[in-house]
Amino acid sequence: MHSQCSEKHEGGYVQATNPHLKSMKEDFLYHFNLGTATHDLPAMFGDVKFVCVGGSPARMEEFIKYIAGELGLASPDGEYPNLCEGTDRYAMYKIGPVLSVSHGIGVPSTSVMMHELIKLLHHAHCSDVIVVRLGTSGGIGLKPGTVVVTKQAVDATFRPQFEQWILGKPVVRGTELDAELAKELLQCGKELAEFETVFGNTMCSMDFYEGQARLDGAFCSYTEEDKQKYLDSAYAAGVRNFEMESTLIAAMCKLSNIRAAVLCVTLLDRLKGDQVTSPHEVLKRFEQHPQILMGHYIKKKLKSYQKK
Amino acid sequence: MHSQCSEKHEGGYVQATNPHLKSMKEDFLYHFNLGTATHDLPAMFGDVKFVCVGGSPARMEEFIKYIAGELGLASPDGEYPNLCEGTDRYAMYKIGPVLSVSHGIGVPSTSVMMHELIKLLHHAHCSDVIVVRLGTSGGIGLKPGTVVVTKQAVDATFRPQFEQWILGKPVVRGTELDAELAKELLQCGKELAEFETVFGNTMCSMDFYEGQARLDGAFCSYTEEDKQKYLDSAYAAGVRNFEMESTLIAAMCKLSNIRAAVLCVTLLDRLKGDQVTSPHEVLKRFEQHPQILMGHYIKKKLKSYQKK
Repeated sequence: MHSQCSEKHEGGYVQATNPHLKSMKEDFLYHFNLGTATHDLPAMFGDVKFVCVGGSPARMEEFIKYIAGELGLASPDGEYPNLCEGTDRYAMYKIGPVLSVSHGIGVPSTSVMMHELIKLLHHAHCSDVIVVRLGTSGGIGLKPGTVVVTKQAVDATFRPQFEQWILGKPVVRGTELDAELAKELLQCGKELAEFETVFGNTMCSMDFYEGQARLDGAFCSYTEEDKQKYLDSAYAAGVRNFEMESTLIAAMCKLSNIRAAVLCVTLLDRLKGDQVTSPHEVLKRFEQHPQILMGHYIKKKLKSYQKK
Repeated sequence: MHSQCSEKHEGGYVQATNPHLKSMKEDFLYHFNLGTATHDLPAMFGDVKFVCVGGSPARMEEFIKYIAGELGLASPDGEYPNLCEGTDRYAMYKIGPVLSVSHGIGVPSTSVMMHELIKLLHHAHCSDVIVVRLGTSGGIGLKPGTVVVTKQAVDATFRPQFEQWILGKPVVRGTELDAELAKELLQCGKELAEFETVFGNTMCSMDFYEGQARLDGAFCSYTEEDKQKYLDSAYAAGVRNFEMESTLIAAMCKLSNIRAAVLCVTLLDRLKGDQVTSPHEVLKRFEQHPQILMGHYIKKKLKSYQKK
């Protein structure tokens, strides 16, 4: 059932393909505390071109400060208001063409955010937008600190698909990401040469412990050998990291005519252990890697637009 | 495959049934930023008896202030430190025997928190603990503001089960909640008589829009009639509210020898619409209903202990 995928995309505008939206007098994006009746969304968001999303609200605030400084648009020490004022479900920051939004942990949390984000971009008449997840992950056979540019976002059986339940029935959606964007991002990593950047498939699990074959959860019904076999089969399927949001983001962007990519840093090598125990400063530095890569990409793109 | 469910429970202690935990020199609960090597967990948490969990960190902070005042343990205007200092993944507050923890939105986010919570309670040698979710939900045929005490937590097909993927394969777990605790909570609601309190089945969906048959998401492949049929079949199956965490909490507590309950207030009646548009003050008052009910229950229990 890929029926939604066949819908036509108009120009470069963000598509919210839901036909019911047209008949709504207003649309209140409850979890953002923003709405078409209360906010001038085109004025607030019409110029957005680069949407960066990630789990932690504090990290997405750090990113907007970093990118403001990098683009020379404002001081990185300035105050950036959270545009989702009045709710603590998500945090949202903006500077120039860059929007930075938190999505919390996991597919359902990210799904709520993505539905409202896509509607927001649609209501604001945004065009030629890209969405990039800047995340953290567990690596498979990679040095911690490596950035994985996702080639294919896959499920727990290593297939590039996302299962969405609708009216009590499962609907399988494709998770193809934008191949050109992925190549450009990999190239940026190579140009920077500040940390390893590699292509790899990314497995999206529904939890952090049992779903990622960890031995250190509250429950564990398998042996160390079973775990090793699963990680080996993941590696053989091209998987280089595990995280918890990629297939959903890929599937939703595909349905909305949005070019999307996933950039996750690996905080540990799962072939060597399960616990995330690197010192705080080291983890903080690792978390900056996707931000630095994305900053380089945005600067490069803005320069190329100026030349045109 | 209900193999885990057959494991024996010892006394009233919280069980982390994972046999691998015994061989770990230390256990760092990464998303709480708490660990056995860095914190004296029995001293910090050994006296916990009532664990209240909910999506929003701000709401869980409000709850600890409320309950501190209700129990006469401290001022509701005081400062309550977030025990998950140094991370913004979850927030945790404690006063006396009450622990209040946020879980974010959805099953995966809640799963990460619950794994670390169960291990925390286990490492702290807690006994006779109950876990109660104080949440928000969409009601089915109920007046907004009603508190639903969950009888059965069910999936999108209205079955009392939770599917956990382990090593690339689905494992189905039961979601039975504690019937006695549910009865006591319903009784508390009746005694208070400040708002409607009812028994009902609670459907746990994997998203807020398509998974709950809303017509106002970014995508919608079904008609208003299809939606109505789904809501009617939910009602016929005894479902009185939709939310996004109940089956996971029920399944994990069952595996851990923890008595659990789910108390959600309904913010709207889904038979009448999809958007959450009540005024902010009204929603804030509704959100207090499960807290007030839980406060009454805790006071009653503590009084009955004192009498013994």
